[in-house]
Amino acid sequence: MQTVLTTPSRLAKRAQYDETTIHAILDEALFCTVSYAINGQPMAIPTAFARQGNRLYIHGSVGSHFIRAIETGGRVCITVMLADGLVLAKSAFSHSVNYRSVVIFAQAEKVEDAAEKMQALALLTDHLIPGRWDDLRPTTQSELRKTTVLAFSLAEASAKTRTGGPNDEPEDIDLPTWAGIIPLQTVRLTPVAADSSLDVPIPQYLL
Amino acid sequence: MQTVLTTPSRLAKRAQYDETTIHAILDEALFCTVSYAINGQPMAIPTAFARQGNRLYIHGSVGSHFIRAIETGGRVCITVMLADGLVLAKSAFSHSVNYRSVVIFAQAEKVEDAAEKMQALALLTDHLIPGRWDDLRPTTQSELRKTTVLAFSLAEASAKTRTGGPNDEPEDIDLPTWAGIIPLQTVRLTPVAADSSLDVPIPQYLL
Repeated sequence: MQTVLTTPSRLAKRAQYDETTIHAILDEALFCTVSYAINGQPMAIPTAFARQGNRLYIHGSVGSHFIRAIETGGRVCITVMLADGLVLAKSAFSHSVNYRSVVIFAQAEKVEDAAEKMQALALLTDHLIPGRWDDLRPTTQSELRKTTVLAFSLAEASAKTRTGGPNDEPEDIDLPTWAGIIPLQTVRLTPVAADSSLDVPIPQYLL
Repeated sequence: MQTVLTTPSRLAKRAQYDETTIHAILDEALFCTVSYAINGQPMAIPTAFARQGNRLYIHGSVGSHFIRAIETGGRVCITVMLADGLVLAKSAFSHSVNYRSVVIFAQAEKVEDAAEKMQALALLTDHLIPGRWDDLRPTTQSELRKTTVLAFSLAEASAKTRTGGPNDEPEDIDLPTWAGIIPLQTVRLTPVAADSSLDVPIPQYLL
């Protein structure tokens, strides 16, 4: 949703507010950064997350200073960035980055309902490793009690993206310098078994 | 340096303050997230950066709302995260992430000296694309005037890392579930030439 907070001051044409774009970026990214402020001092923590509908979930230990600082509902800013490529132009000035980012302004809601909490943990697990949750023993009530799950509304979320090649100034375009894109990609390498699993076949959902 | 702000409340054994560790993480990461607060409202922006000695540099348009909000020296929190792997344990609860992260608390110093500013732009360019700066036409004084460069001290920086396999509870270790690590890596794919460079050979430093 476009609000005063979600309208960027620069390159506003790159801003997007449609759910499809925002959800796709959130579903592809593995980690977000949660920024908060304590007495005006900014703090930030990178962490795992998952999305369902218009809610984003994070989790942490009930004893975590970070979780305790934000679970009472202070404003946070959650950012996600997918770096898609380095954009090399003919001048340093016109170099750029292809990216897809989301910025969310929200307040934490502590998930108290046990069923929603358990479902959020399944989402968090399967967001990083699709198919994993159903392959695991059930999470116990004790484990659930040791974990805080926080939910954030995506009502005040916006996306910003850049795609395509360099935008060089006309006077630079014929310089004999190579210009173009170096695509970036995050890849999953071959799984490495723990000592406890040397005899266990790698499950299909990891291949 | 270990201070009240840089001492994590959880898993403090993972915290590290030596320059070698902090510098290595900063030099490998391509992007950071700069968090700041305006009237208590947390804001955050992912951006490129570079390090030299105990200073971290970012840059932006002189007109950028973000740059103007922090150039006057308010406190910021800069985070960097390298995600090295997903750690799959026998229980959902013991799943983890292998990562190397840095958190910096600092205040922006606007770089006014033209020589330091130009050097910072070279660092920023070569941090993303080693060898690029010397292949480009000189940056003009006009381009320099349109760009703000901010420097941050690394005095209040700390690193946090996790490595290794899952730490399963003894009662879970013999479960027939596969456990191990899925290594993650950010890779640079084959460069794609812009229309302006179809006849220009790809420079050696990009291969």
